Amino acid sequence: MTFEEARAQFPVLERTAYLNAGTNGPLARATTEALTAQAQLESREGRSGTAYIETMLERREIARTGIAAVLEVDRELLALAESTTRACAIVMLGLGLGPDDEVVITDQEHFGLTGPVHASGARVIVVPADEEAIAAAVTPRTKLLALSHILWTTGRRLDLHRLREDTGVPVLADGAQSAGAVPTGAEGLDFYTVSAQKWLCAPDPTGALYVRDPERLRVAAPGYAAQQGYEPSGAFIPKDGALRFDSGWVGGATLAGLVAALACHPGWRYERAATTAARCRELLAARFDVVTPPGHSNLVSFRPRTDPAELVTALTERGVVVRELPGRNLVRVSCGWWTSDDDLQRLVDGLDAA
Amino acid sequence: MTFEEARAQFPVLERTAYLNAGTNGPLARATTEALTAQAQLESREGRSGTAYIETMLERREIARTGIAAVLEVDRELLALAESTTRACAIVMLGLGLGPDDEVVITDQEHFGLTGPVHASGARVIVVPADEEAIAAAVTPRTKLLALSHILWTTGRRLDLHRLREDTGVPVLADGAQSAGAVPTGAEGLDFYTVSAQKWLCAPDPTGALYVRDPERLRVAAPGYAAQQGYEPSGAFIPKDGALRFDSGWVGGATLAGLVAALACHPGWRYERAATTAARCRELLAARFDVVTPPGHSNLVSFRPRTDPAELVTALTERGVVVRELPGRNLVRVSCGWWTSDDDLQRLVDGLDAA
Repeated sequence: MTFEEARAQFPVLERTAYLNAGTNGPLARATTEALTAQAQLESREGRSGTAYIETMLERREIARTGIAAVLEVDRELLALAESTTRACAIVMLGLGLGPDDEVVITDQEHFGLTGPVHASGARVIVVPADEEAIAAAVTPRTKLLALSHILWTTGRRLDLHRLREDTGVPVLADGAQSAGAVPTGAEGLDFYTVSAQKWLCAPDPTGALYVRDPERLRVAAPGYAAQQGYEPSGAFIPKDGALRFDSGWVGGATLAGLVAALACHPGWRYERAATTAARCRELLAARFDVVTPPGHSNLVSFRPRTDPAELVTALTERGVVVRELPGRNLVRVSCGWWTSDDDLQRLVDGLDAA
Repeated sequence: MTFEEARAQFPVLERTAYLNAGTNGPLARATTEALTAQAQLESREGRSGTAYIETMLERREIARTGIAAVLEVDRELLALAESTTRACAIVMLGLGLGPDDEVVITDQEHFGLTGPVHASGARVIVVPADEEAIAAAVTPRTKLLALSHILWTTGRRLDLHRLREDTGVPVLADGAQSAGAVPTGAEGLDFYTVSAQKWLCAPDPTGALYVRDPERLRVAAPGYAAQQGYEPSGAFIPKDGALRFDSGWVGGATLAGLVAALACHPGWRYERAATTAARCRELLAARFDVVTPPGHSNLVSFRPRTDPAELVTALTERGVVVRELPGRNLVRVSCGWWTSDDDLQRLVDGLDAA
């Protein structure tokens, strides 16, 4: 698949320099077609019966296999979860921590991670977002490092594998800005979340959770898909592996779209996105204070000299879609493998005109 | 809206006697059109920006208001939750029960209720599905009655309001087979779940949770929508009312479909469905052992004289869609307000031919 062919999958790119996969990725034509075709089928034929359910269950496994391939992990260790928020909740509720336990997070995490961490009842230790500060915060009471692999704010990548090795503490990786964007090495970590609607260009909400050792995590919120047998009391035999953590039904239309979305990514996606992000960073660094370190991610965040919300609005009016990060005085640009030099030129022209 | 006009909204009814709203309701043409139109819009224009997010948030509130109207409760006391399973998990995790607490359930509950009840760690007391047995199981340690309003198996309706009054114990009502099917009186109970993809004919997974006293339930799995302000540690100020329990993002297409689905129900829905279910029960009772008591619900469950799975398959081949209840030797017929006399005749003809 050439770059032009691959990019041509996305209708939104025909008119818009869409640079916000960090919120939601572009949707391929095939994804929308699969979603709408399934919706129409369900309208005509209903959502019932053995054949219908079997198709849904088969597609769940295709989606599981596809996301597992993205993370390069065993599909048996991957649960389907609607979002990184849900995936973090599965982990935090399952660990059963209390006030004598400590969880280390950074001061740059998304509420999708920090909300569930706080709600766990553990003592939350907040440190600056760098590896030394994180490692220094570890005590004998530390039960978990709950950290973004790539920070949604600055685009900085944390070396979670080094932290795992140096501290020996289990790591929950918020993969919202990394899964599908960069190779993750998830296998070397304990828990890894996926927000498929972002860099995997899937319908929302879709995602997953990698669990390296499923037997050691309790199923705190079991759904029907979690079990392979149960008693009237609700006592149940969990499914093997991480399938027990599947967090709910995926609607037929959304599931069809997810399966299609997982097939739209070319083999060269990571290299191309990295090159494009480096080029974007260079263009922006010539004009602004860029806070994303080079080579860290597909995000490029910079400090505008004017009001960020107004700047984003002005860019939107020119068909350039980026986002601001409220309260941080930052504008964030997301570069996908589908991003063209022309998209970047439109961004720069828009910034120069603003 | 006449019966013919109202029924004509559902393409599946043109060819099929679709009698399985207890699994998933029929989808109105307008629901599918809203869903697919939103999917196509997102494909062309992306899923980003202030206007997009505002539209999504407005539609969430329209959906909340619509479901609250179905339950006849204050919209501020209704959380959007994907399913009854999720809604039950929100309650069970939020109550923070332990092994010294008891929860009374019946032996006829769905795993969507019993799974979360079991996982709560409370002692689960399983009793036969009748009001006397439930009331008799209450002890000073009983913290919750977790019960279906209408049992998904036999279609029996439990008098939850009487149990609430007589025992004084809070009631979690599994409303999967009642919300949208019959008037619920949810306001008189403590927690009430909604599976909108069933009797409300919405896309799946969609639903809600009514919480009578939100301040007394902990937010155990907060998502971004739960809070109106938060600290880097994840400590947060919850939204007012039950909005703090909103359990996650609803995708744009699904949400558009949900809003459309809530508008497809005529004012006479409950009376018509009750009349049709009574007629169905009469027709089946002339032929089989019907286990659903008269006047209890829109479900009619009966014991077939042959293998239930084979019977359901034979009916499906004749365009009559019902379901079997595995392991219970029951076949279940769901009568909606959209069900016609002709649908019932096709059911009876199919049964007589089998």
